[in-house]
Amino acid sequence: MPKLNEHYQDLKESYLFAEIAHRVAAYTQAHPDQKVIRLGIGDVTLPLGSLALAGLHEGVDAMASPDTFKGYGPEQGYAFLRDAISAYYARSGVSVDAGDIFISDGAKSDTGNIAELFDADNVILIPDPVYPVYVDSNVMSGKKVTYISGNAENAFLPMPDPAVHADIIYLCSPNNPTGAVYNREQLQEWVNYALANDAVILFDSAYEAFITDPDLPRSIYAIEGAKRCAIEFCSLSKTAGFTGTRCGYTVVPKELVFTASNGVQMSLHAMWNRRQSTKFNGTSYIVQSGAAAVFTEDGMKQCRANIQYYQENARIIADTLTRKNIRFFGGVHSPYIWFECPNGMESWAFFDELLTRAQVVGTPGAGFGENGKHYFRLTSFGNHENTLEAMKRFEKLF
Amino acid sequence: MPKLNEHYQDLKESYLFAEIAHRVAAYTQAHPDQKVIRLGIGDVTLPLGSLALAGLHEGVDAMASPDTFKGYGPEQGYAFLRDAISAYYARSGVSVDAGDIFISDGAKSDTGNIAELFDADNVILIPDPVYPVYVDSNVMSGKKVTYISGNAENAFLPMPDPAVHADIIYLCSPNNPTGAVYNREQLQEWVNYALANDAVILFDSAYEAFITDPDLPRSIYAIEGAKRCAIEFCSLSKTAGFTGTRCGYTVVPKELVFTASNGVQMSLHAMWNRRQSTKFNGTSYIVQSGAAAVFTEDGMKQCRANIQYYQENARIIADTLTRKNIRFFGGVHSPYIWFECPNGMESWAFFDELLTRAQVVGTPGAGFGENGKHYFRLTSFGNHENTLEAMKRFEKLF
Repeated sequence: MPKLNEHYQDLKESYLFAEIAHRVAAYTQAHPDQKVIRLGIGDVTLPLGSLALAGLHEGVDAMASPDTFKGYGPEQGYAFLRDAISAYYARSGVSVDAGDIFISDGAKSDTGNIAELFDADNVILIPDPVYPVYVDSNVMSGKKVTYISGNAENAFLPMPDPAVHADIIYLCSPNNPTGAVYNREQLQEWVNYALANDAVILFDSAYEAFITDPDLPRSIYAIEGAKRCAIEFCSLSKTAGFTGTRCGYTVVPKELVFTASNGVQMSLHAMWNRRQSTKFNGTSYIVQSGAAAVFTEDGMKQCRANIQYYQENARIIADTLTRKNIRFFGGVHSPYIWFECPNGMESWAFFDELLTRAQVVGTPGAGFGENGKHYFRLTSFGNHENTLEAMKRFEKLF
Repeated sequence: MPKLNEHYQDLKESYLFAEIAHRVAAYTQAHPDQKVIRLGIGDVTLPLGSLALAGLHEGVDAMASPDTFKGYGPEQGYAFLRDAISAYYARSGVSVDAGDIFISDGAKSDTGNIAELFDADNVILIPDPVYPVYVDSNVMSGKKVTYISGNAENAFLPMPDPAVHADIIYLCSPNNPTGAVYNREQLQEWVNYALANDAVILFDSAYEAFITDPDLPRSIYAIEGAKRCAIEFCSLSKTAGFTGTRCGYTVVPKELVFTASNGVQMSLHAMWNRRQSTKFNGTSYIVQSGAAAVFTEDGMKQCRANIQYYQENARIIADTLTRKNIRFFGGVHSPYIWFECPNGMESWAFFDELLTRAQVVGTPGAGFGENGKHYFRLTSFGNHENTLEAMKRFEKLF
């Protein structure tokens, strides 16, 4: 009989968004006449920009003729896209070698799969609250996780404790779910800590495109020394509305070399390259063709127009919470607004209350960790009318 | 300092096709005037069928309007595609529940990632020679592999040894690299063995569309009892020319439930569902839209036309080998032709000989395992003229 990976027994029963979908389905079935507004899952709603669409169509057209047909591509992604992403970094003053960029089908795959490169015997710091994939992918492979506390006191931006040693550190900024953004000094402190501990930072910058303040770092590589300690994950999901089109990228600098127990020097870049070459066959050429259009200056202008639309929604939500004197985080350089549930409610109870009394769907903070138990996440990815309507109902409720 | 996954040190240095690319690049750089014909890597060359192309364009068009825009889809794939694949199975008389089908970005990802579901403590049988992903993905996660010998005596179709217990068995039919195909009785013997041993068969049917004899099984589920012991991986890469478009699917029957060491019943279907929901975010909607067109009856007719073109190439290669009295396997229900290197040569030496003296690129059998050391693989994925020209050069050489 096969011995199964019993670490799966240590996973929490149900994935957050499945449970939300389940409760919403039950409610709408019982109340088919009610208009439910979804500000829960972080999914975009605006169509792709015309340049991305043209790039995708061109990608399909290439498949129509033997002269332009594309079979297996490089597992690391096509040079045209890696170069375009490198140039995109350069435009915000960050130097990233195209050869260090790996194209993938999304940051969820990469942030999940990266755990494969590490042994179970590591001190792994993960913020609480946090995007559940970091924790679950480690639990699945039998790794122990140490939580670092994000809370109202530190504005949900946990900082390193020099007295505590770590080997691997997950950071997400702008943060999912809290919307909090590390500034340059704070990230420098994390990089210094990582270098002092010979640790690796796994930095998720999937929401970087929502940062409008030029003083806030949009990449860990804007920080001195980061290439010697950090891997960065990014995605076109929120930048370009690719949640259903699927494209992400991961930067693994060649500088990341560590000594194994037998004295052999092992390069994380070489390991990730081997992992991807063995268990991944590259991202669809069609998708890469569309993605390359996104990273042109005009393509990015179209993306920014969509992002501004969402940012206006965030402002609508933030204004309502401010009027209601509800403390919140995020909502400025992030599509997420994270607030304390009114009247000391727990987040799943508040979820049910908001769903049944205002027909608005949000995300219970408890789904992101212990520290989210009394918090709630709304997203700005709806359309204006729905967001306005949801906030009207919200104001009436409290 | 992070402790890295040191099992990566146990991997063989270079991936087969990287080494081939390297040698070919060196040769063409030194001889820029020579026309090199590539019958090495198993990559298709014909453009996609018009129906697949239309499905892909429709997928892109959906992204252009808020009413049809697709964000995150189900991690398991859209119902329209799972249903289409279930119907495709049904047309060859095999019943597969759409709910057991998981859509992915390709069989390489799935055959690699499946190892995550199993503990290191298993007896894992892998045929030699074999597609390198099975071995490498197990080595990466610290698992030991037991080889079962494919050789000329068993026509490269190793059969179970009732005296030896196994927990997990990898099978690939039609086989990569040998082109050998198990018949119904042989697969029934494997299924019976798996059931008797409470073992799981991981069955790779990526080349099923090349089978023309209706008596040969194109799916493990054509075999009585297989749903109680087998996972099946399949792909649109060779069926529909999707090597660069990227789509595959994996069937994990709900019947596959095993008892963990603590007595808990664990379902492989539930585990794979959790793995995919946590570390994968679904296949591009655009690609799924194209894939659904492939599985219509007309879409499949277009695929078969391309496959027949490749089969004609296989016939050309097989005829040449027959004339030269070189023993070969495959080439009928498979795009691969596997033959003994002439004059007792080793396969990398033969690779160099064929490259430098005839400017034909093939794949050395040694890249697929010890038993391939004196064998060589040619593929039928070139175009007719190149295949004819390559065989003309081949005949002159020997």
